[in-house]
Amino acid sequence: MAERDQLEGRNVVIEALRRGRRRVTGIWLDERARPGGKVDELSELAARQGVPVHLVPRQKLDRRSETGAHNGVIAEAEPLVAHTTTSLLHELAVRGEDPFLVLVDEVQYEHNLGAILRSALGAGVNGVIVPVVRGKGLSPVVQRVAMGGAEEVPLVREGLSSALAVLVRAGVRVVGCDMDGDPLWRVPLTGPIALVLGGEDKGLTPTLRKRCDQVAAVPLQGGLDSLNVSVTAALFMFEKVRQEAAR
Amino acid sequence: MAERDQLEGRNVVIEALRRGRRRVTGIWLDERARPGGKVDELSELAARQGVPVHLVPRQKLDRRSETGAHNGVIAEAEPLVAHTTTSLLHELAVRGEDPFLVLVDEVQYEHNLGAILRSALGAGVNGVIVPVVRGKGLSPVVQRVAMGGAEEVPLVREGLSSALAVLVRAGVRVVGCDMDGDPLWRVPLTGPIALVLGGEDKGLTPTLRKRCDQVAAVPLQGGLDSLNVSVTAALFMFEKVRQEAAR
Repeated sequence: MAERDQLEGRNVVIEALRRGRRRVTGIWLDERARPGGKVDELSELAARQGVPVHLVPRQKLDRRSETGAHNGVIAEAEPLVAHTTTSLLHELAVRGEDPFLVLVDEVQYEHNLGAILRSALGAGVNGVIVPVVRGKGLSPVVQRVAMGGAEEVPLVREGLSSALAVLVRAGVRVVGCDMDGDPLWRVPLTGPIALVLGGEDKGLTPTLRKRCDQVAAVPLQGGLDSLNVSVTAALFMFEKVRQEAAR
Repeated sequence: MAERDQLEGRNVVIEALRRGRRRVTGIWLDERARPGGKVDELSELAARQGVPVHLVPRQKLDRRSETGAHNGVIAEAEPLVAHTTTSLLHELAVRGEDPFLVLVDEVQYEHNLGAILRSALGAGVNGVIVPVVRGKGLSPVVQRVAMGGAEEVPLVREGLSSALAVLVRAGVRVVGCDMDGDPLWRVPLTGPIALVLGGEDKGLTPTLRKRCDQVAAVPLQGGLDSLNVSVTAALFMFEKVRQEAAR
């Protein structure tokens, strides 16, 4: 049988249907779900795309759920297109877009990866790159928190060091985020760029740091060494958006 | 007996001791905690401040824990000084500081309030105001996520509408955050300011909106209506920091 992703929760399933990045192959809906609002939206999207909707007892969803937060809806979908840094750069070149990529070395909490994908979608990021081993994949929790970001923003799982080598060769400017860097609003972020974030509450490893053209920091008061990694990521992403808007 | 706050986890207790905003009255430490690193730092801080440290079996900590994440350390501390918007403004006037306040209407997740307090500390915010009824207080989870922000940044629990009335009378400029506002980097945020955020994934209520001098937005792509509330809060706080640095 073909590999399938499991999607859980009304919003997650609706985002997958709305954004149409992959085929949703089946939906299981709590037979007692009250019509109206999200349930109607889901049913209409499913009908329009010819996705079968099965009404089932809630216990069946409970048993099948991986998150414990299915909210009355579970779906099966084809996996998203798998990208590598190389294939992503190629696709962007074909579309004539400047790469705007975010690399995150160790995201311990799924909520943070989800929040990063949501911000990435909002900031127009073309891809988020996380390591194969330690980084979390697109778990149901990540999908729920990402609010469509998990569907829309390619998540590349690749060694960060080799991904950076590919980016540098392609002429992409690499800016690392670490506490001893220059204030981020004085660091040029326009044009093709890759932002590199270290682990949660850690800085960049020496290996990653060596690959950076410049290191930038969010200037912090109050004796703090760092912010939440998803907050730092968003501050950098939207600083680029600000600088592009000011060009 | 006097009211006491319970602090859980090494980092939370260390932050309370380091920042010295209130007296820590007792510490209960897992008798099997390995010496070194955080445990030594904690013991030294406690000794210097004359705080009794009781070595206890881990099960005792498990029973007493409210978070399930005590990490081998629980402490009791005097409550933080309770502030109102009025008392906070008074204190800032005495210190000769411009008010920089953040008001958040409905924070559903404790992680988000914690992250907001952490960012607020890093951005030099003088106080965070949340409603009495719906807003969460300084729970152990909030304290853990806030990384010292819960100790250092006054959290005021007050009706937002009446807090805003006090702020407006004091000449503080009020900027609301909502999706139809002006791009935030074109909105002046220097000088005395209060930033108002709506509920999670909701906009500002009409009542709050009426109290705002201007409404600002983070411009979003990808068909997104909003970002995570702690991310939005940080983008606004640090945009003010950027504008102040550019003055």
